[in-house]
Amino acid sequence: MSGAFYPLVLASQVAVVTVLILAGYWTGHFLGGFAWDGSAQEFNLHPLLMILGLVFFYGDAILMYRIFRKENKTVVKIIHVLMQSFALICGGIALKAVFRFHNNAGIPNMYTLHSWIGLPTYIMFGLQYIGGFVSFLFPKLSERGRATMLPFHKYFGVALLGMVCATAISGINNKLFFALPNTSDTPYNSLPAQAHVGNFLGIAIIVYCLIVGFLVTFDEFKREEVINPEKLPLAQAEMKQFKTMDPTDTTGDQEEVK
Amino acid sequence: MSGAFYPLVLASQVAVVTVLILAGYWTGHFLGGFAWDGSAQEFNLHPLLMILGLVFFYGDAILMYRIFRKENKTVVKIIHVLMQSFALICGGIALKAVFRFHNNAGIPNMYTLHSWIGLPTYIMFGLQYIGGFVSFLFPKLSERGRATMLPFHKYFGVALLGMVCATAISGINNKLFFALPNTSDTPYNSLPAQAHVGNFLGIAIIVYCLIVGFLVTFDEFKREEVINPEKLPLAQAEMKQFKTMDPTDTTGDQEEVK
Repeated sequence: MSGAFYPLVLASQVAVVTVLILAGYWTGHFLGGFAWDGSAQEFNLHPLLMILGLVFFYGDAILMYRIFRKENKTVVKIIHVLMQSFALICGGIALKAVFRFHNNAGIPNMYTLHSWIGLPTYIMFGLQYIGGFVSFLFPKLSERGRATMLPFHKYFGVALLGMVCATAISGINNKLFFALPNTSDTPYNSLPAQAHVGNFLGIAIIVYCLIVGFLVTFDEFKREEVINPEKLPLAQAEMKQFKTMDPTDTTGDQEEVK
Repeated sequence: MSGAFYPLVLASQVAVVTVLILAGYWTGHFLGGFAWDGSAQEFNLHPLLMILGLVFFYGDAILMYRIFRKENKTVVKIIHVLMQSFALICGGIALKAVFRFHNNAGIPNMYTLHSWIGLPTYIMFGLQYIGGFVSFLFPKLSERGRATMLPFHKYFGVALLGMVCATAISGINNKLFFALPNTSDTPYNSLPAQAHVGNFLGIAIIVYCLIVGFLVTFDEFKREEVINPEKLPLAQAEMKQFKTMDPTDTTGDQEEVK
């Protein structure tokens, strides 16, 4: 399967570029573009920035550990946290946009299931961000502490991507019902162009997340540490190999050498 | 973390019982109960049976490998495939119900994003079922073939649970908009009792899937084979240990001994 690694990375990036183009086309064209005045055009920033932040930046930030799986881990860690910072900021502005729009239009906040899943997802992402920052970057836990935290950070990282999918699909579906009501000339159920764009946007998000999930969880694609045991003297190489092979060794921060 | 195993299993079952009660209460009481006559009451079988099949049977079928992680694998495999068969049957009847309702009421099929995600999810589940059956049960691949297939079966098993979540959340949210329109006395945005039941149903599904995902992917909870190396003569035990420790050994079908 190792030959599939780069084709899959390429496929993930084709999927996410498709996601961004469809999100821009849907919100910028069909939903009427953007503003910051509490209008429906301000609402449009909500799906656009949520997808830019919580799908693209978030998913690609996770992928960095695989795309650069042979590079220095500290550099990758800094890229990862920078991209997650962009994700957090985009998500924050996106939340602000929808609350401002609702308040301005007199629409109640937080009644849809979409919002009941989405807000906890964003809050859990914030907690995951803080936990990851404190544990792995600064002040940084001991090696043992990091090893304990890592499997949780990894699991919730991927699980949150699943929650992002559930939130995004429900959000896009809701908005398509609002934007294409049965009373309009082009109701959603007649599948006009906007319905196709929105539905394919949802499909592209799922495809992207499926590929990202596979790339980051498939054992064969795990990070290779910079030190290659074949280049070390035999005794050291064997010791290192033994260490990485020890099934009771839970120091996941230092992943196995391929 | 091993002390958390049984509390987490218990929590997952509390979550899924909550899911089933809320699904029954919502469809049986608020949506008006069940029938098989092409009416809206037939539609109600769609969410109920999808949740019974693709959330409860599907999720618990995966969990069987962890709940009985010390038991004979063949027995667990048969329980797993039986539960997945129930999931497939419930899902099939649930699909039939919604198509019959749409056709009877003159509502177009397959226009919502929910359906664009949901039908592929069900088809992928069917392929996963057939692939799993043929690979691991009958006629059954060679040990090497099973070892190649297993990581894919595991990944798509959990990934499909994520797709089930995205489909379920969007489906419940759609139905709440239909059942509680803005023109009614109790619109969705006034958060009447039905909205609370539906929204909490969605939350409970997410909580259940998060716990199942954690239980089946967390390394410490992996299956223990029946043969305990500590009870074998030392040489055999070491050989076994060596085999399970070999990082190039991809025979995932035989998981490591704790």
